[in-house]
Amino acid sequence: MASESCIFCKIVRGEAPAAMVFEDEHTLAFMDIFPVTDGHTLVVTREHAENVFEASREVLEAVAATAKRVAHALRDTLAPEGLMVFQLNGAAAGQTVFHYHMHLMPRAAGEPLLLHTRVPGDPQRLASLAETLARHVAR
Amino acid sequence: MASESCIFCKIVRGEAPAAMVFEDEHTLAFMDIFPVTDGHTLVVTREHAENVFEASREVLEAVAATAKRVAHALRDTLAPEGLMVFQLNGAAAGQTVFHYHMHLMPRAAGEPLLLHTRVPGDPQRLASLAETLARHVAR
Repeated sequence: MASESCIFCKIVRGEAPAAMVFEDEHTLAFMDIFPVTDGHTLVVTREHAENVFEASREVLEAVAATAKRVAHALRDTLAPEGLMVFQLNGAAAGQTVFHYHMHLMPRAAGEPLLLHTRVPGDPQRLASLAETLARHVAR
Repeated sequence: MASESCIFCKIVRGEAPAAMVFEDEHTLAFMDIFPVTDGHTLVVTREHAENVFEASREVLEAVAATAKRVAHALRDTLAPEGLMVFQLNGAAAGQTVFHYHMHLMPRAAGEPLLLHTRVPGDPQRLASLAETLARHVAR
């Protein structure tokens, strides 16, 4: 069930801004506004589903396909040493927005593998990254 | 390219043991022998691919479907408060076995969100979990 107050549903409906990277039938990809690392991107289901249990198999397959597209775009543009892909279900697992989303997080060797930050990203950098990634995803 | 020495390829070929939960055309699911939490399960590609870049879109869609099946089995049997789903690409991102694998890791509130441990699981517990999960996945 879509929630009036769900921030990701607002982005899906175009009622809240996002630095958009990719959209298809079942998924959207955009920059996390609290990027843990440069290039931190989210793949979100178009239809509201709280977690892996509520999202349908078909939608989760679409998430996997979009995540692969975005992963390649990140590698082609930022060439990170590593890439974490993760998805959190429930507050006990660190979920903070209760609408299914997969994180793609570039990693550099030696950095602690943090999952969250409270520091917002620079909007200009997020917009620039989204534009670059969108060009590479579309190829 | 499958590697003679790859531990997950050995499990796929039946040359190394694993507490198996599920198998289909493209994927296997079995208990992690170094479980960070009780119920920590891996979804592994049958064909050797080092990471999200090497694995095909078709195989990654199959991983997503198997991960959902295992997630439901974990919820139905262990009822964890939370569930982390993650997949690491490159040593810089914490990858230690260089054959694509998705972690499913039950979480309890208040525990630190560790990704690794060096403590092997109790083989009897892993076998018992695998048997229980396999029954629930098969439904």
